Parts: sequence; structure tokens; C-alpha cells
Amino acid sequence: MCGIVALLLAAQDGLSSGDLFEGLGLLQHRGQDAAGIITCGHKGRLYQHKGNGMVSEIFGKQDLINLVGNMGVGHTRYPTAGSSSSSEAQPFYVNSPYGLVFAHNGNLINTESLRNYLDFDAHRHINTSSDSEVLLNIFADNLQKTGKARINEEDIFTAIKGIYDTCVGGYACLAMIAGFGIIAFRDPNGVRPLVYGRRASSEGYDYMFASESVVLDVLGFTDIVDVLPGEAIILTKGNMTKRLLMPGKPSTPCIFEYVYFARPDSIIDGISVYRSRLAMGEALAAQIIKKLGPNHDIDVVIPVPDTSRVSALQLSYKLGILFREGFIKNRYVGRTFIMPGQQMRRKNVRRKLNPMPLEFADKNVLLVDDSIVRGTTSKEIIQMARDVGAKKVYFASCAPAIRYPNVYGIDMPSAKELVAYGRTEDEVSEEIGADCVIFQDLDDLVKSCARFNPKIERFEASVFDGDYITGGVTPEYLAHIEDLRNDSAKGGPETLASPETIGLFNSFHNK
Amino acid sequence: MCGIVALLLAAQDGLSSGDLFEGLGLLQHRGQDAAGIITCGHKGRLYQHKGNGMVSEIFGKQDLINLVGNMGVGHTRYPTAGSSSSSEAQPFYVNSPYGLVFAHNGNLINTESLRNYLDFDAHRHINTSSDSEVLLNIFADNLQKTGKARINEEDIFTAIKGIYDTCVGGYACLAMIAGFGIIAFRDPNGVRPLVYGRRASSEGYDYMFASESVVLDVLGFTDIVDVLPGEAIILTKGNMTKRLLMPGKPSTPCIFEYVYFARPDSIIDGISVYRSRLAMGEALAAQIIKKLGPNHDIDVVIPVPDTSRVSALQLSYKLGILFREGFIKNRYVGRTFIMPGQQMRRKNVRRKLNPMPLEFADKNVLLVDDSIVRGTTSKEIIQMARDVGAKKVYFASCAPAIRYPNVYGIDMPSAKELVAYGRTEDEVSEEIGADCVIFQDLDDLVKSCARFNPKIERFEASVFDGDYITGGVTPEYLAHIEDLRNDSAKGGPETLASPETIGLFNSFHNK
Amino acid sequence: MCGIVALLLAAQDGLSSGDLFEGLGLLQHRGQDAAGIITCGHKGRLYQHKGNGMVSEIFGKQDLINLVGNMGVGHTRYPTAGSSSSSEAQPFYVNSPYGLVFAHNGNLINTESLRNYLDFDAHRHINTSSDSEVLLNIFADNLQKTGKARINEEDIFTAIKGIYDTCVGGYACLAMIAGFGIIAFRDPNGVRPLVYGRRASSEGYDYMFASESVVLDVLGFTDIVDVLPGEAIILTKGNMTKRLLMPGKPSTPCIFEYVYFARPDSIIDGISVYRSRLAMGEALAAQIIKKLGPNHDIDVVIPVPDTSRVSALQLSYKLGILFREGFIKNRYVGRTFIMPGQQMRRKNVRRKLNPMPLEFADKNVLLVDDSIVRGTTSKEIIQMARDVGAKKVYFASCAPAIRYPNVYGIDMPSAKELVAYGRTEDEVSEEIGADCVIFQDLDDLVKSCARFNPKIERFEASVFDGDYITGGVTPEYLAHIEDLRNDSAKGGPETLASPETIGLFNSFHNK
Amino acid sequence: MCGIVALLLAAQDGLSSGDLFEGLGLLQHRGQDAAGIITCGHKGRLYQHKGNGMVSEIFGKQDLINLVGNMGVGHTRYPTAGSSSSSEAQPFYVNSPYGLVFAHNGNLINTESLRNYLDFDAHRHINTSSDSEVLLNIFADNLQKTGKARINEEDIFTAIKGIYDTCVGGYACLAMIAGFGIIAFRDPNGVRPLVYGRRASSEGYDYMFASESVVLDVLGFTDIVDVLPGEAIILTKGNMTKRLLMPGKPSTPCIFEYVYFARPDSIIDGISVYRSRLAMGEALAAQIIKKLGPNHDIDVVIPVPDTSRVSALQLSYKLGILFREGFIKNRYVGRTFIMPGQQMRRKNVRRKLNPMPLEFADKNVLLVDDSIVRGTTSKEIIQMARDVGAKKVYFASCAPAIRYPNVYGIDMPSAKELVAYGRTEDEVSEEIGADCVIFQDLDDLVKSCARFNPKIERFEASVFDGDYITGGVTPEYLAHIEDLRNDSAKGGPETLASPETIGLFNSFHNK
Repeated sequence: MCGIVALLLAAQDGLSSGDLFEGLGLLQHRGQDAAGIITCGHKGRLYQHKGNGMVSEIFGKQDLINLVGNMGVGHTRYPTAGSSSSSEAQPFYVNSPYGLVFAHNGNLINTESLRNYLDFDAHRHINTSSDSEVLLNIFADNLQKTGKARINEEDIFTAIKGIYDTCVGGYACLAMIAGFGIIAFRDPNGVRPLVYGRRASSEGYDYMFASESVVLDVLGFTDIVDVLPGEAIILTKGNMTKRLLMPGKPSTPCIFEYVYFARPDSIIDGISVYRSRLAMGEALAAQIIKKLGPNHDIDVVIPVPDTSRVSALQLSYKLGILFREGFIKNRYVGRTFIMPGQQMRRKNVRRKLNPMPLEFADKNVLLVDDSIVRGTTSKEIIQMARDVGAKKVYFASCAPAIRYPNVYGIDMPSAKELVAYGRTEDEVSEEIGADCVIFQDLDDLVKSCARFNPKIERFEASVFDGDYITGGVTPEYLAHIEDLRNDSAKGGPETLASPETIGLFNSFHNK
Repeated sequence: MCGIVALLLAAQDGLSSGDLFEGLGLLQHRGQDAAGIITCGHKGRLYQHKGNGMVSEIFGKQDLINLVGNMGVGHTRYPTAGSSSSSEAQPFYVNSPYGLVFAHNGNLINTESLRNYLDFDAHRHINTSSDSEVLLNIFADNLQKTGKARINEEDIFTAIKGIYDTCVGGYACLAMIAGFGIIAFRDPNGVRPLVYGRRASSEGYDYMFASESVVLDVLGFTDIVDVLPGEAIILTKGNMTKRLLMPGKPSTPCIFEYVYFARPDSIIDGISVYRSRLAMGEALAAQIIKKLGPNHDIDVVIPVPDTSRVSALQLSYKLGILFREGFIKNRYVGRTFIMPGQQMRRKNVRRKLNPMPLEFADKNVLLVDDSIVRGTTSKEIIQMARDVGAKKVYFASCAPAIRYPNVYGIDMPSAKELVAYGRTEDEVSEEIGADCVIFQDLDDLVKSCARFNPKIERFEASVFDGDYITGGVTPEYLAHIEDLRNDSAKGGPETLASPETIGLFNSFHNK
Repeated sequence: MCGIVALLLAAQDGLSSGDLFEGLGLLQHRGQDAAGIITCGHKGRLYQHKGNGMVSEIFGKQDLINLVGNMGVGHTRYPTAGSSSSSEAQPFYVNSPYGLVFAHNGNLINTESLRNYLDFDAHRHINTSSDSEVLLNIFADNLQKTGKARINEEDIFTAIKGIYDTCVGGYACLAMIAGFGIIAFRDPNGVRPLVYGRRASSEGYDYMFASESVVLDVLGFTDIVDVLPGEAIILTKGNMTKRLLMPGKPSTPCIFEYVYFARPDSIIDGISVYRSRLAMGEALAAQIIKKLGPNHDIDVVIPVPDTSRVSALQLSYKLGILFREGFIKNRYVGRTFIMPGQQMRRKNVRRKLNPMPLEFADKNVLLVDDSIVRGTTSKEIIQMARDVGAKKVYFASCAPAIRYPNVYGIDMPSAKELVAYGRTEDEVSEEIGADCVIFQDLDDLVKSCARFNPKIERFEASVFDGDYITGGVTPEYLAHIEDLRNDSAKGGPETLASPETIGLFNSFHNK
Repeated sequence: MCGIVALLLAAQDGLSSGDLFEGLGLLQHRGQDAAGIITCGHKGRLYQHKGNGMVSEIFGKQDLINLVGNMGVGHTRYPTAGSSSSSEAQPFYVNSPYGLVFAHNGNLINTESLRNYLDFDAHRHINTSSDSEVLLNIFADNLQKTGKARINEEDIFTAIKGIYDTCVGGYACLAMIAGFGIIAFRDPNGVRPLVYGRRASSEGYDYMFASESVVLDVLGFTDIVDVLPGEAIILTKGNMTKRLLMPGKPSTPCIFEYVYFARPDSIIDGISVYRSRLAMGEALAAQIIKKLGPNHDIDVVIPVPDTSRVSALQLSYKLGILFREGFIKNRYVGRTFIMPGQQMRRKNVRRKLNPMPLEFADKNVLLVDDSIVRGTTSKEIIQMARDVGAKKVYFASCAPAIRYPNVYGIDMPSAKELVAYGRTEDEVSEEIGADCVIFQDLDDLVKSCARFNPKIERFEASVFDGDYITGGVTPEYLAHIEDLRNDSAKGGPETLASPETIGLFNSFHNK
């Protein structure tokens, strides 16, 4: 996952960097690995600042002042397979044609053929293993084919249509053409989120795009609208042009945004993340009654902070059981000295959560988490609960069992590392050491979201059912992904070297 | 406020820096301004690493490896009046006598006379406006008077007794004598917290001191005990010596630790912070019924995150009203570009909290916060609630009205800036724009804490009642504090310069 | 001026960065403003490290290790008009077509029309005011026109021929195509220097290009040959291809390389810089006799260190006068706090040179410098000589009077700022406060160089005679240059801002 | 060796840091390892900035502005045995008594007993292996014994007399007492240099101390006087007090300052370094005639730059042989990646010097260097000369053969590593590969210096004759030194760790 923002201020002499910086801070939960901003100033000159780490560490006051110009694009990166081995921070840039800046959230499934095309047909060098560099260059190649000295909206729509016709995957994109304007588009299925809004200023309307509505909300933008699947929007000075390039394609947003990834105060494709989580809690309560019976012996409901708190609270009301904050999160635990591999991941959980013995001692507790992925964290949490005196430990997941890899931009381990892969619920329960594990039902999860926007009939939920919305996800492709993502690959030489590797677009002068 | 830790490992060749670093991370909430560690290695050689900012930013892996030695002291700093204008990070060090390292949490009220003593009688140069440097030098002077080449426990107890006899205030202190051991002591009233515990290792017991028990808990220390008021403890290789230097003095812990400052999973002077907050919630519920009547029209209880969550939840159960997470905290909002003064502080609240309109629209909401200080934050929050549709906004404070300055180490504005200073509850209510404000009763607050440890009969609660435990807090002293703390002083030239000032003990080589 | 290097190691798994780093250090005198290296590793992936400042400050051991690959290009930058206002460090990179890396020494005189071409015809965005970015994009555009997926030597020669046909100026260029090889070429007049050599390794020959032969010499390369004017050379794995694209064009090397810019131990276009300076000293001695007569009253010859030392020594032998090191250079004077403008430039001379009173007191001294540009330095030096007791101060310049601007890459002030502009020798003498100034004769200077390589019949010596080798240097162009280079422009807002401006290819994360 | 400076400006609101910075830059040749400045501002508050590396890298403009105050002390460090294994940069500081700042050039020979005294009698912790920390604490202890709240000149003289009575070695010291003034003193034999001067300002005289007169000269100070052996000087606001505490002690300056260490434009103890080098050249010429006879076959005299240039030139005149700059120094060769041990030291010579083949080919050359220490550099240089065609290579040393270690602050290898240790001249010649080696005669060397100041009757020349001026240099002490200094010790674990070790007074926050 990544977070993206773009802004065009009405004021010609405005400084877009301040709002872009605030926006990236509000999307920090979507990626804490690296961040960057490129702005466009007078005469189309571009200004850049990027770095590894948190947004507040990367950008200082002077850095923002140096980012001249009333429009710009920003990105905050979550390390996914591929990009994790590269030190590249987005936005990316190519100077031909026109000077293109590009930031992207998502993942492609046919990069290999696209890379071949770029090499043999478009003669474009791709220097990273990032999908974003591929997408940018496909876009650039499509624009270049127009052969025009001065591009117009029609040309850009044609170029984006070309992307839709060739690039398979989930992608929300923000681009900028030097001296021209901002461009936004979303894949034909609308898997990854993208919204925009406007804000009145003394010289007209400012327009901003962002991965999540919370950015626009906090920064005072209103009239917030989702970019539609297959839609492209072009912002130039004083003008917004929209085009539905894949008309008739239904929205199939990634359901994991609601389960885990997005902020609760965001509204994605018309569905309040917060409301959907309340609904998930209610549905999960029903599932618990179904599994444990109305005469269950649960004494207390305890959320695993922070994501599941909303669902767990509603679940507790529904069950009529006390809700307690039984775990305290150690918010300032650094990520610096965490070594790769299973051993440390386990220890890390204990560093991040501290149990309140009072709430566990001699009680049957129901722990509620948003989802269960590898199961190692859940296992550790359950053990912690027992260590401080819990009699029984039930473990409920707001999401169904995850059994398939994600190919649209959510970083997940390989299938074999998923605890529910090839295991029944009981086997998962045994594996993680719970007295009983209760998963959400997939239909219930879908309903928990869909009920707030009847227009959405389907969600991208392949990690639960293996049904990939785009097609083209072959067993061979999944095997390939498997190779890239399993732990041993992550611990391989390329990854180890990566923190030191200085990429081409990032010349940090480390003293 | 500040956080302090000290560690002596049983293993002679152990590396204390790792645990000290983790410990400082767990005390990050007590101070995010600066941090440092000094360790003592072979032949008494001391190693230091300090910096401005968050613990995880200051210490890298290599920095910790460079901090050689099996014992050490760490500190994380909250900027209080005086220290805020200095770039000094603790622990501090003086080489005469013996090589002393010192870290401190608290505040003295008679520094001026102590400074005069140090100048004219002890001939010691004090280079900062930090109380900690004063305390360290009083300690050093007392030790020096023994005239001994090799100090022993008795000498150290005598020196600390000398501190108790001369230094008025609240202070928890951790010191280290090069090549000798660790020393801990707490002021005669036990205002600031300090605990210790032990952890079995293959070579004996490791001992650790910390401001809060959560540090020991997470790092695997057990047999956790509070340092008593007026008690001093000396740890040397394989030996712990304790002495109650002010016998008979009752503990009067700072009640604000329970209200706001400490982590909920800490136990301070035998009282679980978490339990005390549950109790505060119950008591506050009773207060609300008393004020609004049993037929009040409150629809929903909404905490102002994060501190008040525990109390608010219990309060909601007591009142039988729905509890909702109506505000989402923007956790990654940087502190970098916040300008001083009232104007920005207001705007800052909006940057830090985002309301969920669903939970406010057309409802009468009861907001619960831990306390009300200046009132500017509360005012802004109430306005936010109204902006998203709240009908009525009640505002409850887990603490009573704050009307007096704090002189024992909690950073508070000057009395005149306190919204409850010279105002009745109704006037406060009007000032912050609430339909009604409900304060905790001071007796109830005391009971909410005291019920969990009957041995504690009194708390330091001067900000509520103006009764200062140490005596000696004259109107003149308060007027002096007023001068230092009011906003205009904070914005004055000394403060503005401070981020750039390179202190004597901190030679950052800024590239 | 700038320094450029490129290296292709025979060993596939060799690390080119070490030698490139050493090479840049040996070219540090050609530019101390910024430096960078780009290498090409496995599968054509490019690695970059750049920074502002001295080579030894920019590159650390780990930086070099991170620069993976057996071939690479390096650059060290001298700030010329235009580039001085940009924070861009070379080499530059464009990804389309093929992935091109580019480093350049020199200057173009028709950039304006080339920029228009790139914008309107090639649709390439130029983001800096650097000529190098223009040249790189012209090269890229020419290569792109081939439309080939895999380029070959013939295509590259065609592309470079296209540069010769359109780009007017003096330029020595080193390029690298990702995964392909190294390309070197020199402008049709051979104004800027470029040499290459080879070094046997166990796996074949390593090949290196550099601005000056001293790099190859020190790094153990032999068979050193000059790139010819209008010649292009392509190095791929195990193969070197050369083509004289502008056959019959005579070499007209920049004479200022011999006078001042190059290291004495370099050999440029077959002429030893050292020998040419000895010859200049002899010729200047004759000039002195001509001007002052054989019965002159000079007591001692004193060089202005370091460049003129070689000439001055030989001059002293020729005149039979004592040679003395009368000035000591303050080698470690930092450049950091020098403010722009005339006032500080004067003071700066005193910071950089210290006179030995013993050698001046009561003597008639002949100071020998390589050249006189603004005259401010000379004036200050003469005054220093008088201050320590010199009776008469004669001032001899190894170069003739400079009266015209340089347009081929040597940073010179605007014509009006040249002390000899519009002044006779006597007027110059008066202006700088000398008892007499003696300039080298231009014919003598040319002979001092040409005698060591009879094939060179003409030198680019336009700063002395206004005869620009390329043609096309119109009064309008010179007026335009004048605007860019005069001091007030340098002090303008763009320049002041420049140290802070973060360019697109350089994302320094300043902490 | 180290360089030290101190400054007291007449203007109360003056900023001393600028001149101190310039002064350190002018003493950079005395130490390039680390540097620091401590200033004293309003109310005696001290400000510090230190770092590893070159002066111009350590101090930025803002750093100097932060160094508030009209008086201060600066230091630039050369790594000697002991200090090389520590990361401490001077000046050092102790706060008791009074707040003392200390910078020092030299070495003690009785540190072990002084350390014992400080530990057992003065109870002062010494945290480094630096002699300077010992000296500072002896000074502090002496001052402390006065027991006075406000010190006066008499007390300070008494304290320094105490140093003279106990501290054996060569030492030039600059101290500052917070809020009081600057103190300078020099060991009873005046081994290490120290001068002072004054500069008129509108508010009175500024006074500056420095290791070498060139600092005062360049910064506009006049009336330059040497601090006498055993003399102490105290500068307070508007007052200078001097006292000859060891009257009658003759000056015995270190002769190596003239041979190699000092800048030629400095005057030390009344002797111009430049003049002494001219004289050394003359005397060496006589020695050459004596050794090779008047009919020697030398064709050319070539200095090994930079130190020997002055002597070699005069020698060439005396012999009537051509002088040539046959070696070009690679000034920008970084020191970063030089590995310890013999192998790399050899390679390093080739990186630092480049021979001009023209001046060597088919010639009998006389190379002139300031001295021969290990012989490895000389051997390499001679080989280089032969490689470029020299027929015979004679090697002349301006200094006699070095056969004894230095104990007064000049970093030399252990005796066994000295090439002349246990070797005759002929054996040295064979060892370094010269056709003949010619050493200066010690009497001639002494006369070359003494003739310019008849008052100096003896020099500290122990490296040549083993006669140590202070007495107390026992075989046991020399054996101890041997252990510390031999190469294997330098490569030992302590040294390897040192670049990473963060010392107590230096908390670099490395990001």
C-alpha cells in the first residue's frame, strides 16, 4: 500500500508544498518507508525532495519552502515485494516527453510483458523493480506516440485509455506534466481508492486528489467525490476535464481497505470505513453466537489495538459483554533494530503491546483483531493473555480466513506462510493456541460494507476467495509471486543491501 | 516531566545500552524533546550518546553498540520552563569528584539560593538553567566534602541526606559513579515516581530503576518495588543497599501522574494507573448525575483520545449511555512547524483530531477529557463537535478545575493562562463554549486513587487546591514562576534561539 | 571548467567506483563545487551518488561500495554562469531511450535554439539551466530517431555526428548507455581536453577516459592518447570502436588549459603542460628585458602560488635573478563564509596568501602570476608586497592581457569587469598599483605551447584576441553572456536561493 | 602536535568565534583530526562546538553564530599515541572549580603518577587517555585548593606554579575561566611554541594567543611576543598580567618545529622558520660537497614537496645546480580509505606525489626532504624517481638521522620502526634504495636555527641525540612508549573502535 496526493492551487504564486506535506502526514498509515514531493514552479521547472523514513523526519521547514510552485504531487511508500528491495522513493520522473511526474498506489500483474515492451518497443530503460516506474513509462510512451509538441486533454485521455488496455492490476495514479497540470486516473475496476475535492480561495478553487477522503476533510476541501473506475481527470489552470474511459465498468473496491488499511474517518467509494467496521462488529457478534452458542462463557471483549477497536466495541454491545482496553500499545517502539525472520517477529509483538493483568486474570476473554495473517502475532498475543491469567482465550477476526495472496498492492506473505492456508478453522485455532477462533463470514463482510452503498455489488476480496477481479492471475503468476515474497527471499542479499543502495533518483549525500 | 532509567547488569561483559534504549522508548510519553544515555564500561570509562528528538531517531544500532558497559543511566526530556530554553540533554556529568552521572525528573523551588551556594561556597560553575545541573552539583559537593579517595555507601547516604536537607521540591533521581555503581533516590515527599525491579540472569540478578513500572514489566523485571519517599538505594556489583533517610515521611505522590501523565499500564506507589482511571470515570459519572440530573439528555459519551478513554468507557457504563470513538487522532502530525503563541495552538488541535460526523450529528454528546488547562483545546474540540452537527455539547473533566501553577516538574502555563483561574464552573463553561462543563470533585479524585493503596493518605494536588506539599512556595516564588512561564516569555529571544544553541555538553556536529 | 572521467573494467565483477573516485580527486582542481558518479551494474541497473562540495567529503567508503558495477562515469563541477544558479550535480541521466548517463566539460553558444528544438520538436523537458542537460537531450533525441530496440555503434556515431552538426561550442563528453558501454566524444575543434588509456588486468584491458592525462598516469593506465577533434569512441565489453566524424578538422585546444587550468603533470594534445609553462617563463623573461631593459633593477623573482611557480622559476634562471617563495599559501582557508561582491573578494586574497617580509623588504620585486583577470587580486597582492616593505613591485603575467569573454566553458567575468578591457598596459599597471606590468606576448604564448607539438597550428585563444574558433559568437550573444555573468546577476535572487534549491535529480535529505 | 588559539575581544558584545575559526584554519597543518571551539558569553555561560575532521568541514556559519561571547579557546588535534584511540576533541571542560576550559599542545612523561594522584588524592575522574585531560585536572585541583569563591591572578599563578612543579614534559596551554578570562602558560623549558599579540579596536585592545605567529599576523595582530618558558599570562577584561614563574630557565624550543612542523611564515622564539630553512639548505649543501666531493655528478635538485622546498631551493643555489619541481603533489587525495599498516602506507605515497618524467629521465637527481622517519616514504619516492628514468638518486635530509622517540608531543613511530635506528648512513642508504643518503649534521642544524636568535643556546633535539631536556625519560618509560606506539598497537582493537566511540564530551547525533 502507498498513499498519494496531488494539489493544484488557484493562486499562481501559491506554495503547494505545505498542504502536500500535511496530506502525506495524514496518509502516513499507508506507508512509513519513504516519502517524497515534486512540485512545479515558474516556467515548468520541477523541484523535488525525497527521503527514507517518516514524513515528519524527511521534510523540514526549509525543504518545504524550497519546493516552489502552486502544483505538486506527493507519495508515501509502504514496502511491497519488489519495491522493498529498492531505495527508490516516489514520485518518479521522466523528462521525455514533456516532463512527467508520477505517483502510484497499487500493483500490476503483467509487469513482465510490459517491461519487455518498454525495452524492445519503447526503448525505455527501467532502473528499478517498481511497478510504478513501469506504469509511468507506459504512460510516457503513450503520450510520446502523439508526436505533439503541445499536448491537450484529448491526447492524455487517449494515452490513459492505452494504459487501461495494456496494464492489468489495481492502480490509482497521480501524474503531473511540467507546466501543464495534474492528471488522475484509477484502474478499470477501481480497486485502489482515489478521491478529490475542492476548496474556495480568493482566486478560485484549489483542487486536491488523495488516496483517502480524510486528507481533504482535514485540509478543508469539500464536495469530495471518488474517481470512478476507468475514469481520468485532468486539472489545468482553472479547468477540470473528466472522462469515463471504461464506461459501464462496475466499482470493485478492495475490501481490505475497510477491514484494515484505511483510516476509520475516511469514506471510500461512498462507504464510511467507520460504519463498515461497526457493521463488521455486529456481524461478527452473530458469528460468535452461532459458534459458541448464546450461553457462551465470555467475560470480557478486548480489542487488539488500534484497528479492531471500533468493531470490537460494537460487538461487545451486541453481545452485551463488558468491553475493556486490555492491551496498551507501546506507540514509540522503534522499528530500527528488528531483525528479519520469524524469531524476531514474535518478540516484536511483546515489544508493541503490553497486557493489563487486571482485565485478563481469571477471565474468559474474547480477543478481537481485524484479521489473522501469518498467525504468529495472534499466537503471541494469546500467549500473553494466558501469561497474565486468562482462563480461556477466544480469538475473533473481523475478516474471514486469508488463504490467497494479494496481487493488487497489499503486502502479504506468500500463501504458504498464511496460517489459514491449508488449515481448517480448528487447525488454525490449535496453531495459534486459542480455545476457539471465530472468523467473519465473507458474505457478512461484504454486506457490512455494501449496505452503505448499494451501487457497489462486488468487492475485490481475492485474499479470501481466490477470485481475482482482473483475470490473468494464473497459477504460474502466483508461483512467481510466491518466490518473490517468501521470507527467505526477503532475507536474501538484495534486501539486505537495500538500505544502503542509493538509487538513481535519490542521491542522498550521507555524511 | 521527564523519564529516567538506570540499569546494572549482573554480567560484567553485558551491554546495558539495549535495555536502556528500550526503557527510554517506553517512557517516551514523559518527554519527546531530547534523550540521552551514559554508560560505564571497563576501568570506569564513561560513554555517552545524546540528541534532540524522539528516542528512535536519536539512537541507531551502532550508537548502542558504542555505549559500552554493563551499567548506565538514561533520560528522556520534556521541556519545562527553564530547560526549554537550553539545548542540554541529560544525563549530565561532572568529573569531580569521582566521575558523576546524573538524570533527574522533577523540579526544585529553591534553585536560586542553591545556585548562589554553588557559586560562592562550592565554586562550581553551572552552565545551564536546568535544575538537574544544580541538583547534580549539590550532590557532587556533598560527596566532595567527605574528602575520601574511595567513597562508600555510608558517604553516599550522607551526601543524599544533605540534598534532602537543602533541596526543596519534587525530584526522582538516578546517578552513577564511574566504576562504582548506580544510585537512586526520591524526594522526602515522594512526589515524582521511581520504581525498581530485578531480573534473573545466568550470572546473578540484573537491577533496573525507572520512572514507571511499565518499563520493568515489558523488559522482564519482577519484584517491582517503589523507592520510598526520602529513601536512597545504592547498587554496586552484586550488592544493593537501601536506607530510609527521612523515616516517617509519608508518601504524597503527584496526583497528576494518575490523571494524565503516566501510562495506564504503570503502577505508581502501589496504585494501578489504569484502575484509578476507571474509578475516576465512575466518580465523574456520579458528578454528572449530580449536575445534570438522572434525566439528562446525553445521547453518547465520546472520549478525547487517548488518555481519557479508560475513564470515559467506565463512565459510559455507569451512566448506561453508548460509548463511541468520535474523534480519530492524527498520530503522525509532526511538531516541526508549529509556531508559538495562541493562534497556532488553536489550529493545531484541528490538525491532531478529526471528528466522525456520524457520532455527533443531531446528538447531545458528552465529551470526556482528562483535564482542562488553558481551555483553548477544549474550546476548539467543542467547536469541532458543533461543526459536525452536535446539538448539545457537555464537557466532562476527569480532573477538578486547575487554578494553581505546578512547581514540581509538570509543565503548566502560568496561573493567568489557566481557564479556571478566577472563573466559576459556569464561566469556564461559557468561555470554552460548552453547554455545561462538569469537573471531577477533588475528594473523589483523591479517593479514586487512594482506594487502591490505603497507605497513601495524601497526594500532591496543588494545581487544584494551591496547597504545596513542601512548603516554601511563596507568592514571590509563584510570581517569579509566572514570569518564566507566561507565553510571551516562551516566545522571547532566548527560546527562539534555543534550537540553534549548542550547549556545552552537547556538541552536535550539524552538517 | 569541469573534470570528467569514465571507466570500463575488463573484469565483469569489478567495482569501477574506486578508480572513478580517485580520478575525480585528481581532477578536483577543475571543479570543487559538486561531484557525482553513476555506475552500471548487473542487468544494466544504474547506481548514483552525488553531492555538493569536495570529492573527499561527498564519497564515503560505503557510498563507493554501493556504486555497483564494472563501468561508470564521474564528474566534478566548477560553477559557470548558468550552472552556478542550479544545484544539479552531474552526471545527468535520461531513461529514454535506452538509459543514458552523461557528463560534460565545456559550453555551448547556441543553447537557446537547441532548447527551443528540444521543447517544440523533441518534446523533451529541460529542468535546469545547464548546457549539459541540453547536450544530453540532443544526444538522446538523435539516438531515439533511430527507432531501434538495440542500438549499435553505427547508430551512435550517427547520433554524435548529429550533435556536431547542431551544437556549437567547446565540449568534451562522456556518456554511458545502460547495459551497453561507454561513449566519448570531443567537439569538432577539440577545444576541451579528453584523453584515454588502457591498463592490463587478468581479464583483459581496462579502459579509462579523463579530462587530463594525470588521472590515467597515477592510476596505472598507459598508451595514453588524446581523443581527436570530432572523434567519437565507443567502448563495449571487450571492444573499442573509433570514428573520426569530422575528418580534416584541425585541433585547436584551449590555450588557457596550459596557462592556468590543467595540472602541470598533464599532457594535453601532445603538449606537456609543465614544459609549456617553462617555455612561457622563458618567453616572459625576454619580454621583461624588452620592456625594462637589460639593466633593470629587479632584485628577486617571486611567484604567486601555485600555478605560476614553474614559469617563474625558469624566468628567474633566464634573467639570472634570485627566485624566492615570498608568498605562503593558506591551504586550508575555507570557502564557506565568503560573501559575494567586490569587497569580500579583496579581503579573501589576504586570507589566502601570506607574504614573507624578509623577501620583500627594501627590494625591487618581480611578481609572476599566470594571468590577470579582474585585477582585484593582483592589486591586493601588490599592496601586500608594498606593505611588507617592497620598494618597487613589477608584475608579470604569463598570459597576455585578457580583454574578451570566454564562451567555451572557462568561467570568466563579463568583459567590463576585466581590468584590461579598454585599458592599455600602462593603464592596467596604474589600476593595479604596479610600478610596471608586463604581459606575455600572444605569439610567444602560442609558440610556448606549439613548439612541443608542431601538429597544433592554432589554439583557442579568444580571451586574448576575440577570435572565436567556432564562429557564431555575435555581439548579441556576447551581450547576452554579459548579462548572465556580471556580478550583479550573480548576486541576484536566483543565485542567493541556489544553495537551498533542491534540484530534480538531487534529493538531498538535509538533516 | 596540535594547534591552539585563544582570543579576548575588547568589545563586550564582540563575537570571538570568527577569528578563532580563522585561526584554527591557519593552524590546520598542526592537526587535521578533530577541532573545537568553546566561547564564553554573558554571565559566564559557555558555548561549544566540536567535531572530527577539517576545520572548514566542522564549522558552518550558524555554528559560529551560536558560539556566543567575546572570548574563547580553540584547538585542532593531531592524533598522537593515546589521543588517537579516543574520540575526544578539545578544548576540554570541567565545571569544578569555577568552570574551566582547556586546550593544550604537547605531551607529559609522568602522566601515570599524575593519574594516580588525581584518582587517589584529588578524586577526579579522568575519562580519556589524553594528557590534556590530566593537565586540566591538575590545574583544576590546584585552583580548588585555594578554596576561594572568587579567584584572582595570584591564585592562578600559584596554581600554574604547581603544574610546573609536578608536570614533566613539553606543553603549551590555553585555558579560560568562565566569566573571568583567558590564561596562557608554557612549560619551564619552552618546548612547545606559544605567542601572543594585540590588535587595536574601537573599544581597546583585542588580545590573541596562538601556537604560531602566522595566526596573529594574518588576523592583523601586532606586537607579537613569545610566551617565555615557565611564564604564565592572565588576560581579563582590560588587563594583562604576566609572571615568570620559573625565572632563569632558558628556552629550549623543539627543533622539529623549524625542520618540519611549523609554517615557514611563522616566527618561533624569535627565529623565522623560513630563514632557518634557508640556512638548513645552505648547511646541507656543504654536507653534500663534503660527502660527494666538489666534482659530484648531480644534475638537478628536486624537493619533496612541500616542506623542503625552501631549503632545497637555497641548497641548489649554493651548489649551483638547477632546481626543479619534479614532483607534483596531489593535494586533494582523501585520507578516508587509507587502511592502517605498512602495505597501504607505501601505496599512499604514490597517491600523493606524481613525478614529472622530464626532470628525472637520464639524470642524476638529488632529492631533498625535510627528514627521514620510517624510510618507507623515502624508499617509495626513490623508486618512483628510478621508474621515470633517473640514473642516480641521491637523497638529502634537512634533518640529521632520527634514532630516538619523541616524548614531547610529536607523533613518531617507535624507535624500532625508525629506519636510522641501529643503522649507519650507508645502511640507511641501502635500505631506502638511494645511491647515497646525506643527512644534515646536528650541529649545523642547531646553528641554522640559533644564528637568528643568539639567546637560544639549546634546542630540544632528543630525536637526534637521545638527550631529553626534562630529564626523567628512563629506559622503562621509553619501553612503555614503545608499546603504545608500535604499529601493531595502533592496529589493535581500541584504535579500530575509535572512530565509532562516542566520547563523553562529544555527543554527535549521527543520522
